Amino acid sequence: MPLQSVSTSLADTLRHRRQRLAQALDVPVILWSGSYSPRNFPANTFPFRASSHFLYLAGLSLPNAAIRLAEGKLELFMDDSLPDSALWHGAMPTAEDIAQSIGADAAFPMAVLESRVANAATIAVQDYPTQLAQAKLLKRAVTQASASSEIDAQLTQAMISLRLTHDQGALAELRQAAAVTVEAHLAGMAATLSAQIEADVRAAMERVIISHNMTCAYNSIVTVHGEVLHNEQYHHQLQPGDLLLADVGAETAMGWAADVTRTWPVSGNFSPTQRDIYQVVLAAHDACIAKVHPHVEYQDIHLLAATTIAEGLVDLGILHGQPEDLVEMDAHALFFPHGVGHLLGLDVHDMEDLGDFAGYEPGRVRSDRFGLNYLRLNRPLHPGMLVTIEPGFYQVPAILHDAERRSKYQGVVDWEHLAQFADVRGIRIEDDVLVTETGSEVLTAALPTAMDEIERVVRETFTTSGLTQLD
Amino acid sequence: MPLQSVSTSLADTLRHRRQRLAQALDVPVILWSGSYSPRNFPANTFPFRASSHFLYLAGLSLPNAAIRLAEGKLELFMDDSLPDSALWHGAMPTAEDIAQSIGADAAFPMAVLESRVANAATIAVQDYPTQLAQAKLLKRAVTQASASSEIDAQLTQAMISLRLTHDQGALAELRQAAAVTVEAHLAGMAATLSAQIEADVRAAMERVIISHNMTCAYNSIVTVHGEVLHNEQYHHQLQPGDLLLADVGAETAMGWAADVTRTWPVSGNFSPTQRDIYQVVLAAHDACIAKVHPHVEYQDIHLLAATTIAEGLVDLGILHGQPEDLVEMDAHALFFPHGVGHLLGLDVHDMEDLGDFAGYEPGRVRSDRFGLNYLRLNRPLHPGMLVTIEPGFYQVPAILHDAERRSKYQGVVDWEHLAQFADVRGIRIEDDVLVTETGSEVLTAALPTAMDEIERVVRETFTTSGLTQLD
Repeated sequence: MPLQSVSTSLADTLRHRRQRLAQALDVPVILWSGSYSPRNFPANTFPFRASSHFLYLAGLSLPNAAIRLAEGKLELFMDDSLPDSALWHGAMPTAEDIAQSIGADAAFPMAVLESRVANAATIAVQDYPTQLAQAKLLKRAVTQASASSEIDAQLTQAMISLRLTHDQGALAELRQAAAVTVEAHLAGMAATLSAQIEADVRAAMERVIISHNMTCAYNSIVTVHGEVLHNEQYHHQLQPGDLLLADVGAETAMGWAADVTRTWPVSGNFSPTQRDIYQVVLAAHDACIAKVHPHVEYQDIHLLAATTIAEGLVDLGILHGQPEDLVEMDAHALFFPHGVGHLLGLDVHDMEDLGDFAGYEPGRVRSDRFGLNYLRLNRPLHPGMLVTIEPGFYQVPAILHDAERRSKYQGVVDWEHLAQFADVRGIRIEDDVLVTETGSEVLTAALPTAMDEIERVVRETFTTSGLTQLD
Repeated sequence: MPLQSVSTSLADTLRHRRQRLAQALDVPVILWSGSYSPRNFPANTFPFRASSHFLYLAGLSLPNAAIRLAEGKLELFMDDSLPDSALWHGAMPTAEDIAQSIGADAAFPMAVLESRVANAATIAVQDYPTQLAQAKLLKRAVTQASASSEIDAQLTQAMISLRLTHDQGALAELRQAAAVTVEAHLAGMAATLSAQIEADVRAAMERVIISHNMTCAYNSIVTVHGEVLHNEQYHHQLQPGDLLLADVGAETAMGWAADVTRTWPVSGNFSPTQRDIYQVVLAAHDACIAKVHPHVEYQDIHLLAATTIAEGLVDLGILHGQPEDLVEMDAHALFFPHGVGHLLGLDVHDMEDLGDFAGYEPGRVRSDRFGLNYLRLNRPLHPGMLVTIEPGFYQVPAILHDAERRSKYQGVVDWEHLAQFADVRGIRIEDDVLVTETGSEVLTAALPTAMDEIERVVRETFTTSGLTQLD
């Protein structure tokens, strides 16, 4: 029952957001929620996920709905469910009831929307049938990531300016997602000693998320092959010498996400080589978080991660040279080939449906440098922004065995020495960091990053639900 | 790595299926696998699920691929992944390697397909962007469930005739899905006494499915509100007097599904009223399974369920009259408002992407009778068909409080007596039943249906993985 999740304070939050949007933009705005995506036949759908822009202003995950904001009024457009629908989906609140709960001034059947579209700006939803419906009603192309009309471009900029920094209502949700995600990771660590394959650990983690009535904000990564960055396989056996990399995040019922990675030893003990590299990644993680402050450029945090990793690898004898020079020539990216993080909010890469419009300050574009190209965020930080900090070290065969790169970096990599670190395929340490007025707050700080603490959690025997110790 | 899942015998199975299709149809056939559906931004997708028609003939879950069958040859169309892709998704086999593994005669980049489309028949995939690509290449409308060209209609009929009865390769997969689903239900029962909310039980069940490297064939139903047939909420507290209805099924990596429902008491003990109604549903379940034989009309099995339930409710004093008369006037459907089952195969409602073309014998259409309208299968049974048998009893407020129905059935329902059964909101018992030469085989027979056995499983303390008894 979606109505239950709307508290008075949330209704106030929503009203406040809409007022701010109205101040930023003086044209009518129509936002669609989107529809179900079919899996293998129309009645077997993936779980519904409303458009984040709709969720931001309407608060409820309503399929096949739209809202129109104009002249300080909110109109809700949705069809009441058919009588038969109560049999299959239960009694649903009426559109009138829902309108009241989100502070809308009126509710209309979807068919009425056609008469209310004049001069309205919109943002494309993700599901294509609804996107076509948007274009048909507005009589213009409505496509993702490239606003095709001036008013759509204005709306996009206005939504970005609103969503870039989080209000108290958003933060309350984001803190809940973070807390459940921390619990999921602890459960995953605790389930590892008794697990046979990656999927056992994944299941223990997702169990926590499901049991809090949340969903996964993205397809979980739980793998002994951390060198595959977006590994979505879960069938590998866990071997005693393996590191397990788990990148798993919860999403609240209202759509707010967490995004956390930890890497722990399957046996409960890091090997000496794993300790060496883990310490390098952790140093980068800690240095970057310490640097998060208002007005700091996020790209500088990325470069700090790169330099810290280069430094650590020089100390270990894997790289040779001055860390700054190594970063200048992108040698760090041989082992740290992605960005240090991204925006986090309703989307796990917040507002990435808008391409780089949200992630990149106007006028900036992606670098074509190997070591910067994957950076998803390039803006100065401001209080209220939530970002991930997620440095990593990977031995990616496609990079390290690439003849061109081996030749280019021949003088700075000690390949023979590197071979001693073969039991480190991938390590990532990722936390969710809120920019505050005076610095930062790590929303996921309750989850240990130190090796000794992680080993302790892995070695202690917990049940997977509630972390009740058995012995 | 998809290649690992192709054994020699599967390649033979695939070759045999393609030969049978070629015998049934003498035009070229092109089948697309479909693409990822985005969740909230393009890079955050739902898990990929290939079109079942593609899976049936190509065996592997390959995104953005197509196969062309013509003159006894199989051509595979897919683009090799970009070099960068190895970083994010790992090294992938080449199109050439994949072609070899599925017994294709040649592999081409997707762009070549445009030159091979002449006179080809196809079936619409589920994702709309790929569906538009199908239409564009074939230069005609390609839409779901209504073949718009003669050759597409012929292909649809040919695929139905192939997929209606399962070959040995299919049955091996279906048996695996069934076995894992049985294990999941046992784990769900065993997790109930320590569970707080529905989501705890769901998590324990899905953990088993994930740990076998399978997925859920459909969104799980795990609810104390069984009266909502497709309930996808999991946040309700479990109360001692509640029945928990769990409709959860696994799907193998190659796409073959199971679909099983059990209903058990949260406390480990059925109440006397719950026992009474459960026994009625179980009698229908057992009678229907006993009736499954070649040449029996599936609708007659549905009507047997209806009659058995009516009989049971007469015995309990809830309905008055002759069971046959009650079924004739659809009084059973007040409490059993859905069909007794459906086809099961690659899709949990097999081939429902084709509307009723697969479920209904040519020339037959859905009845508009309240008690027959939801029947998804209306064909004579043949050896090799796999069907679900899933009678149920529900107290659906939208039905039982409907003024028109209350008036129509005033004389046959003892509403006052019914009120004594208020602790039975919904019961369903569902198994997967294979039609054999001599009768039937229940693929999910290892999962108990008897109340005493179910109570025993609920009350015993198991861990959720591996069913190791703790005490």
